[in-house]
Amino acid sequence: MRLPPNTPLEKFAEFIHLVQEICGRENVEIVAKPEQLSKDHYLDQSKVHDMFYLLGKDCFVSSAVVAPRDVSEVQQIVRLCNDFDIPLWPFSIGRNVGYGGAAPRVPGSVGLDLGKNMNKILKVDVEGAYALVEPGVTYADLHNYLVEHNLRDKLWIDVPDLGGGSVLGNTTERGVGYTPYGDHFMMHCGMEVVLPDGSLVRTGMGALPNPNSDPSKPAHEQDANESWQLFNYGFGPYNDGIFTQSSLGIVVKMGIWLMVNPGGYQSYMITIPKDEDLHKAVEIIRPLRVSMVLQNVPTIRHILLDAAVMGNRASYTNSDKPLTDAELDQIAAKLNLGRWNFYGALYGPEPIRQAMWQVVKQAFSAIPGAKFYFPEDQPDNLVLQTRNLTLQGIPTTTELKWVDWLPNGAHLFFSPIAKVTGDDAMAQYQLTRSRCEEVGLDFIGTFIIGMREMHHIVCLVFDRKDPESCKKAHWVISTLIDDAAERGWGEYRTHLALMDKVAQTYSFNDNAQMKLNRAIKQALDPRGILAPGKNGIWPSNYNAEQWEIVPKGV
Amino acid sequence: MRLPPNTPLEKFAEFIHLVQEICGRENVEIVAKPEQLSKDHYLDQSKVHDMFYLLGKDCFVSSAVVAPRDVSEVQQIVRLCNDFDIPLWPFSIGRNVGYGGAAPRVPGSVGLDLGKNMNKILKVDVEGAYALVEPGVTYADLHNYLVEHNLRDKLWIDVPDLGGGSVLGNTTERGVGYTPYGDHFMMHCGMEVVLPDGSLVRTGMGALPNPNSDPSKPAHEQDANESWQLFNYGFGPYNDGIFTQSSLGIVVKMGIWLMVNPGGYQSYMITIPKDEDLHKAVEIIRPLRVSMVLQNVPTIRHILLDAAVMGNRASYTNSDKPLTDAELDQIAAKLNLGRWNFYGALYGPEPIRQAMWQVVKQAFSAIPGAKFYFPEDQPDNLVLQTRNLTLQGIPTTTELKWVDWLPNGAHLFFSPIAKVTGDDAMAQYQLTRSRCEEVGLDFIGTFIIGMREMHHIVCLVFDRKDPESCKKAHWVISTLIDDAAERGWGEYRTHLALMDKVAQTYSFNDNAQMKLNRAIKQALDPRGILAPGKNGIWPSNYNAEQWEIVPKGV
Repeated sequence: MRLPPNTPLEKFAEFIHLVQEICGRENVEIVAKPEQLSKDHYLDQSKVHDMFYLLGKDCFVSSAVVAPRDVSEVQQIVRLCNDFDIPLWPFSIGRNVGYGGAAPRVPGSVGLDLGKNMNKILKVDVEGAYALVEPGVTYADLHNYLVEHNLRDKLWIDVPDLGGGSVLGNTTERGVGYTPYGDHFMMHCGMEVVLPDGSLVRTGMGALPNPNSDPSKPAHEQDANESWQLFNYGFGPYNDGIFTQSSLGIVVKMGIWLMVNPGGYQSYMITIPKDEDLHKAVEIIRPLRVSMVLQNVPTIRHILLDAAVMGNRASYTNSDKPLTDAELDQIAAKLNLGRWNFYGALYGPEPIRQAMWQVVKQAFSAIPGAKFYFPEDQPDNLVLQTRNLTLQGIPTTTELKWVDWLPNGAHLFFSPIAKVTGDDAMAQYQLTRSRCEEVGLDFIGTFIIGMREMHHIVCLVFDRKDPESCKKAHWVISTLIDDAAERGWGEYRTHLALMDKVAQTYSFNDNAQMKLNRAIKQALDPRGILAPGKNGIWPSNYNAEQWEIVPKGV
Repeated sequence: MRLPPNTPLEKFAEFIHLVQEICGRENVEIVAKPEQLSKDHYLDQSKVHDMFYLLGKDCFVSSAVVAPRDVSEVQQIVRLCNDFDIPLWPFSIGRNVGYGGAAPRVPGSVGLDLGKNMNKILKVDVEGAYALVEPGVTYADLHNYLVEHNLRDKLWIDVPDLGGGSVLGNTTERGVGYTPYGDHFMMHCGMEVVLPDGSLVRTGMGALPNPNSDPSKPAHEQDANESWQLFNYGFGPYNDGIFTQSSLGIVVKMGIWLMVNPGGYQSYMITIPKDEDLHKAVEIIRPLRVSMVLQNVPTIRHILLDAAVMGNRASYTNSDKPLTDAELDQIAAKLNLGRWNFYGALYGPEPIRQAMWQVVKQAFSAIPGAKFYFPEDQPDNLVLQTRNLTLQGIPTTTELKWVDWLPNGAHLFFSPIAKVTGDDAMAQYQLTRSRCEEVGLDFIGTFIIGMREMHHIVCLVFDRKDPESCKKAHWVISTLIDDAAERGWGEYRTHLALMDKVAQTYSFNDNAQMKLNRAIKQALDPRGILAPGKNGIWPSNYNAEQWEIVPKGV
């Protein structure tokens, strides 16, 4: 088994004994060999190591996983980790797929499974249009709550591609969705955070006590200020951002604004026949998006992303080389899709939707051969039917399917931010596709259009049981991070194995940002127990070089 | 003159000598007596003390004011202040009116006048719909730039009530405006910040170097990443929030998103005759605002706010008692206004505006006697004509006029956050009005409706040359802060004299938020040179009690 760094077995055993006293034996699992986890154990392998392991199951692996039952137990565990100098890696549900799942950066860290027991929807406020959730609440949970309470006609949630992840986890990792509320961090409001010393903070208006709360209760149980989920900023420095993609605190409660049912909805797909018309499409998209004629976070997806949802690679080709343009054209023709396919939606009463649709349709009609479809036009189109749900905030798991493009399919996301220009889109597409093809991988990707930029998500699908395939995927993403930085493109999020590398690209002025991050880390977590190495931020008591991960050549 | 704390005259003289070497004699003013500042001096009294002084001109007063010419001079000044243990109080234009203007919290601090020389619009990007500005750029400057470059048909800015303030300063203090882009912090993107140790950070995508930048140049002159103003969050902890309402850094460049001309605009006023119908109005507003039928940040203004813009108190009454309901009704009748007046706007092409207007008009028609006006219906209504400009992002200074309600008019803002409910609005109105009337002041106020809450802005107008009037205003705001906290209401921003008091109300869990803020302050500014006491955050080398401000009884 993998012990925490610098922790002899006896000391670890003592830690485990004490942590069992805190949260009960049934909520503590020691990880001997991940494979041995059976149905007798509460947790499965996905909570212990990255299911899409790039470097073997033993690289990013926990020594134990602990599931606190409430916030006071989180506080106690954090204090215990300080006493024992044992690193703690919090996760909510563990579905940070493509970025490492529940696995820790430092092998032997203790996984903090917030999702198992702390999974309550604490509040859905219809008048204020918000929810307050614990880490274990998934998008599916929150949606089901609305359905069960007959609130779906009043409130919608925003969901990412997969509905099984944690609302709080996705937001604190700054994930995105596809409705007008797609920027999850922008739409969060109020956090309760356990700091690395075990103390408890409520941010924003949560810092103002509710005068009716019972002072004899522990802080985390006290009634919160009524404006906590209504106004983000409170008074003085606005701290929420430092708890995102962060090792500065454990977010244990979070508010999220819900979208009021817009009173009308119509999703659509626009197929764009030619590969090179990505350029034209993005130039059309930019003015429409920035003026909010495109009301939501739309996507322009490469043919293979849609094709992979509908079938695995073998169902399309016998070739073991990357699919050629001719083959991609054939697949597009077979599926009645374009080489790029744009998915958007109209929100609001009929006259508003009509006004928007006329503008959208006219604009995209400038692309030769562009075709326009509503979901009812293609009832058997799995992707269009799924996007129709996603763009109205109904969670699904359909998009899991593209991971099976290859046998033993696993994936990594390469996620550079792009300017919303045809030139940037084409340049990123050409660069990423050619690097994929260099090692025999197909390009699969999508551009997600936010307020002023695109998240370009390249889905690097590999065979996790084939060491050669893993090595290739690792080389591609590692090389692409360098390629991108050379062109001024940076990633918004990355896999455990690449965190140092991406962090190093954000090097302006002699790594000034990293120095700032490290100074705050040192102030709040002097013993470096919380998520060491996360997003490249190493506490002062870690030698970063010792933990460096170097991709093997291909 | 007032020297910096613990700074003998000789040491101060040496500091001044060195700071003159940094930024030129013409950019350093020593403040002997504020009154002696004449036209020979570059700066006026408003840069030295709070023009709306509550506690005398000498209470919050600078020892000197220094105006750096560029970012490297800011860095050098910060380092010099560390060497000399002299507190530095940055301001942009100094128009933080109602909250202390340019004045420092600690008397004798050196004022850092960022606006005098650092006042360039560095970029207006039409395609990306954003601007990059220095601290000295006012709303009027930015608007004029758009007009002069014939860009007003493409881009609008969002402005607060007064157009003379700094875009950067307002945003970092988390001020608000009234268009759909009214949440200025939400709509900012990317900062360049001088930290208290003099180092320079670019946040978000700015931390990723532009590959074409010239490494031989100083950091602040290097070409920035092209996505700096397009994507806020970058990689790792998102730090921008900690530099707002903050003493953790000096923001020297900031990006702000501009609104694309919506292709149509119509402002309107709805008059609400009865005082008690505030309740009904707010209940009508909430669902419309949260569903974005009310597309912008609208306001519901008390009759006296509008009346005060149109004339001073003496023009309405000879009474020296607070105006009675009967008198307020008379004023409303005379001005053809309601006791409350709602100002909103419709944005977009005609069919969209029509659809929104029908819903708005029908909803407000539930209020007996509510009347609906477009600006063209009341060409002589100064407030309606001004709001018509403000709500389309055209800066004005008309609203300055209500400060003249009393002779030698000065004002303080009392600014609690309110839930958007009729009950909360009525309760805050009744509380604040009755406290004002207790000391003979009229209630003047407005509710500004944000995404999920209201900023209730109570304008406490007093006679700054009448010590009794000052004392009353101080007592009212101080008492109201306590009153509000007892009911769970907190202020989003406050005057220098009340910062400690408001900060103390945000006391959840044994002042956990303040402890967090102090820990970060200590890490980034161990000598406590930057804006000590701002928003109640005292560096460890200050004894907060020594600087306490206690209102005198009335």
